[in-house]
Formats: sequence, structure tokens, C-alpha cells
Amino acid sequence: MATRRSVVLASRPQGEPTAANFAIIEGPIPEPGPGEVVTRTLYLSLDPYMRGRLSAAKSYAKPVEIGEVMTGETVGEVIASAHPDYAPGDIVVGPRGWSTHCVSGGTSVWGAALTKLQPGAAPLSYYLGILGMPGVTAYSGMTDIGTPKAGETAVISAASGAVGSVAGQLAKRAGARVVGIVGGADKVRFVKDELGFDECVDHRGPDLRAALAEACPKGIDIYFENVGGDVQAAMFPLLNDFARMIMCGMVAEYNDTSPRPGPNLMSAVRKRLRIQGLIVSDKPERFAEWRALAAPWIKDGSLKYREDVAEGLEAAPEAFIGLLRGRNFGKLVVKVS
Amino acid sequence: MATRRSVVLASRPQGEPTAANFAIIEGPIPEPGPGEVVTRTLYLSLDPYMRGRLSAAKSYAKPVEIGEVMTGETVGEVIASAHPDYAPGDIVVGPRGWSTHCVSGGTSVWGAALTKLQPGAAPLSYYLGILGMPGVTAYSGMTDIGTPKAGETAVISAASGAVGSVAGQLAKRAGARVVGIVGGADKVRFVKDELGFDECVDHRGPDLRAALAEACPKGIDIYFENVGGDVQAAMFPLLNDFARMIMCGMVAEYNDTSPRPGPNLMSAVRKRLRIQGLIVSDKPERFAEWRALAAPWIKDGSLKYREDVAEGLEAAPEAFIGLLRGRNFGKLVVKVS
Repeated sequence: MATRRSVVLASRPQGEPTAANFAIIEGPIPEPGPGEVVTRTLYLSLDPYMRGRLSAAKSYAKPVEIGEVMTGETVGEVIASAHPDYAPGDIVVGPRGWSTHCVSGGTSVWGAALTKLQPGAAPLSYYLGILGMPGVTAYSGMTDIGTPKAGETAVISAASGAVGSVAGQLAKRAGARVVGIVGGADKVRFVKDELGFDECVDHRGPDLRAALAEACPKGIDIYFENVGGDVQAAMFPLLNDFARMIMCGMVAEYNDTSPRPGPNLMSAVRKRLRIQGLIVSDKPERFAEWRALAAPWIKDGSLKYREDVAEGLEAAPEAFIGLLRGRNFGKLVVKVS
Repeated sequence: MATRRSVVLASRPQGEPTAANFAIIEGPIPEPGPGEVVTRTLYLSLDPYMRGRLSAAKSYAKPVEIGEVMTGETVGEVIASAHPDYAPGDIVVGPRGWSTHCVSGGTSVWGAALTKLQPGAAPLSYYLGILGMPGVTAYSGMTDIGTPKAGETAVISAASGAVGSVAGQLAKRAGARVVGIVGGADKVRFVKDELGFDECVDHRGPDLRAALAEACPKGIDIYFENVGGDVQAAMFPLLNDFARMIMCGMVAEYNDTSPRPGPNLMSAVRKRLRIQGLIVSDKPERFAEWRALAAPWIKDGSLKYREDVAEGLEAAPEAFIGLLRGRNFGKLVVKVS
């Protein structure tokens, strides 16, 4: 196959994206210009934040333009290089886009150089998940904002996902009682039996607030926010004095066409809450730190991880649409070649 | 006069308090029991937080019961003492209640001992305002959460009040551009001409959001929240990336019978906001620190302050009702005797 295939944004979604918002384009595999590197994509990461890139609204990152290749992290193999630091055969991780082949200089929007991986240290796709952006998000959120202490109660939304599963396991390591929130009985079982959370609540159950109150008899000291919506509304009244809300994402609201009201903030005064947002690209120095910490835990089995793998670049749009609905089970990646 | 008069809570207000929610009771001036101190009240502080004490709802402090004397900070003179550390003639500040005379042990709900004041260091009523609870609130809020830096924009609501006037002057000392929000043209003038803020917006004007946007051409980096309501809603979209919201109070909503919706918190993710609450009684160690810092600034005229003095204990209920409407101009105190 001598062509490159890429997924581009065909039109901006109103509400939930559909397959028609994406298109596949083909073209020749490029040659590297001076200082450039061409890679063949092995794995592509699909993450909720990408929904923001489909919108023209002002945000912390610029939107994908119509006709432009979708942005995304990949693990790839260098197949041609005009950059002194990279040679064919090198395995690299970086923001390369929804494409079978990518060409770029050796730097990354995450602030670090296109990172060369040591094959064999961990499965390559892990560098898009537990050892990559989502893992670092969980780590820096828990370390800088959550600061879990023994005996505290930490609640993690989207607990079976790439960020939530790590966030909860880190709180557990710190001695907290950890309660997950997920959608579906299979995810409840996974979070309790595999990840080792103390409790897990199904947000699709009949009375989320009652279930959450029962799972958190001492209230909530730390809440890791990945979903927003009804889950946020159910959780908010249970926050204890001095509770921390790690604001990482609100995927349940990403397809909304107008923003929902949030909680009345007088609780932030009365309870001395700390509600703080986090975007991992602000913390490039945390990537190497987290990889050094987590890789041995993955190897010794004390840090668990689950992936949901879609096959082939063409599967990416539908897999991404499913991600926004919570259809994935574990960190969603696309095996591109 | 050989009697003690006190203001008690006669009934719980629904919505805005009225004079009928309060009653005056009389009784003999007590004798001190072992370890107790009796004071004659000179000044009583009236503060927005007291609205919370009128409600039976769970909060960080227990409510005032029906028939119980209203709580409040006072400056008083010791007239009888059975405590080794206090002698008649001592001037003390502490939480003594809406009463002409108080009896209590030598400790304070603010976590410090009933503090003896050095007469002459500053006007005695200042220990209820700029050198007391409101001043320490402004100081610890700005120091621990606001962290103003040169060139940043700090917006202060209720800017002519006890907390806001200090908060803004501290941000100005740190090199920030400081914008006040007040109700009324006389307060606008005071905040700009006397306190030295760079700009001040009247929230009673026709288009608060436009006025605020014009006063903050570079957006808002620090917001000191004293009022909530429409002011919070107008300010929120103007927050910059990494902005800090110091959640101190929301007086415009204290008479609400059901909570208003708040802002959608996705902005906290996108902009990496930090929204954090503060209650000064958590920080007793800050009182002495602030007094040592601020007293020289008051003396040399570089830290400005304005009081609104009501005369006589009987005036307290109406003055307090006016405070909730923003009728006071400066820190509200009652001259009791």
C-alpha cells in the first residue's frame, strides 16, 4: 500500500457527531523535508477532549478546521527521517493525527520532543493511555489538586476509563476509600474486582443520588470529574468540608448545544471547597516523571489497565462517537497497522 | 443603667429578614463565675455571614436558636473578672453577641483567646473591621488563593465594604490592576478616589456585563467573591485562563428561599480555574500576623478604611437588614455605649 489515508473533519457537528461529520482522504506517503520525520501509525488514541476540537468555539486549543486531519496522539514507527535524532525503526509517541502516516518535525504540542520509546518496556499502546496523556492527567490531577489522605473518600467518575482507572488506583494507594461511578454492570464488576475500588455505582441505576450516598457514608473528600451532567449534580451535595473537585472533563455535556446550569457556588464558601481545572499539556515535565513511577507498577501487576481496541483507521469515527456515549470499556485506541 | 439588654432571634426569616424577626430582652448584668469575664460592649460588628446563623440549615457554624442572643464580634471593656488574665478596664475583642454586656470564659470561637487590645494603637472599632475578622478574611483570601501578580487584573465585589476594600488594596500593593464593583455612584467615587482602585463599576447600571468587560480589557485573573447573583454571572465569562475565584460570600443570595443555578463548570476545565472557599475561623493564626502587618499601613495612611456607624444596640436589627441590601457604606458597626 503506497498511499496515506487520513480522517478529516468534513463538517462541524450540531450536538452529537455522526459519521457524516468525518471523511477519509487518500494521498501519497510524503517524503521528509529537512528536519522532518515520517512515521507509519501503529496506534491512534481516541479521547473525549477531541470533541472540543470539532467545535469552532474558543477553547484552550485551536479547533480542527473543516478539511483538516483530526488531531490525536499516536504511537508510530519511523519509516524515513531527515532529523538527526530519529532513524527508521524508531518507535515514537506524539501528536500525529488520525492518519496512517504522518510527517512532522521532532517536536510535540505536548511540549516535549517526539518521544522515542524503548520497545519491550510496556505494550506500545500503553503510551497512549496509562503511560501517556490520560495517565499523566490522572497523576497530576490527584497529586496537585486531589491530595488524597488515608481515610478520605475519593469518588471517580468514568472510573473504568483511561483517566478514571488510574486516578482511583492512585487514591487507593494513598489510603483513601475509593468509589467509582460507571455506566453498566460489567464496568461495575471490573472496577471493583479488577481495579480494586471499594465501591462502584452504576449511574444508569434508578436513583443515582441515593446509591452514591449509600456508597459514601462519610461524604466525599475528593471528586475526580470526568463526566459532568447528572453525575456532577448527584455528587455535589455530598461533598465534605474542604473537599477538592478535580475538574478534568465533562464528557456527558460535550454534545450539548447550550451549557447547562451548574451548582450554586455558595457551597464553595460554606464548605471551603476547592474546584480546580487541569489540562495536561500545561505539565509536560510530568510525563517522564509518571512513566518512571508507573512502569514498574504495571510490570508488577499492582497498577491495572484495560484497553478497548478498534481495528483500522476507518473505524475511528464510529469508535469516537461511541466514546462520547460511554460505549467503550477501558481506554479506547485504534490499531491502525 | 443596671440592666443588660440583648437582641435575640424572635423567629426565623423566610427570605429577607424584618424587624419582627428580632426582639430585645432585658435582664440583670451578670456576675462572673469562676474563670469568667464580664464586659460592657463598646462596639458590635454586623457582618453578612450572620444571615446564615438565622437559618436552621446545616452550615459550618451552628444556627442561632429562637430566643437565643444573636452572635457577633464585639469590642468591650472588662467590668468584672474572675479570670487571672483579665482585669477591669482591659479592652478586649471577641465573639460576645448582640448585647450591652456579656459574660464568658476567656476563649473565643475564632480559636484565639479573648484578645486584649492596646488602647491607642488604632481606633477600637477597627478591630471589628480592617484589623479584625473582615481584614483577616481579605488578607488570607488574597494571600492563600488570590496570589496577585504584577500586571494581573483583580476584580473585587462589594469593593467599598469591610472585606472588599482591604482585598482590593492588597491586590493593588501586589501590582495588580484593581477593578471594584459596588452599588451606587457615591461608592464608585470612594473606591476610585479614596481607595485608589483603577476602575470601579456600578452594578446598578444598565448593562453590568458590558461595563465590566470595558473595565477589564485584559479579562479577569482574580475575582474576590462577596456578592454572588447577577454580579457573579456577569463576571464569570470574563475570567482568564488560570484565574482564581476567592469564594468569600454571596450576600446577594442570602435571602433566597431556594438556591439559584450557578455557572457551568466546564469553564473550570477549559480555563484551569481555581474556585476556592475561605472561612476565616479556619485561620486563627492569621489574626496576629495581619494586625502586625496592617497597623503601620493604617498609621501611615497607605491602607484606607471607611466605617458606617449605627448608634445604640436597638439600631442593630435595622442596620443588619440594610447591610443585606447594600445600604451601608463602609464597614458596618454599632456603637453600643
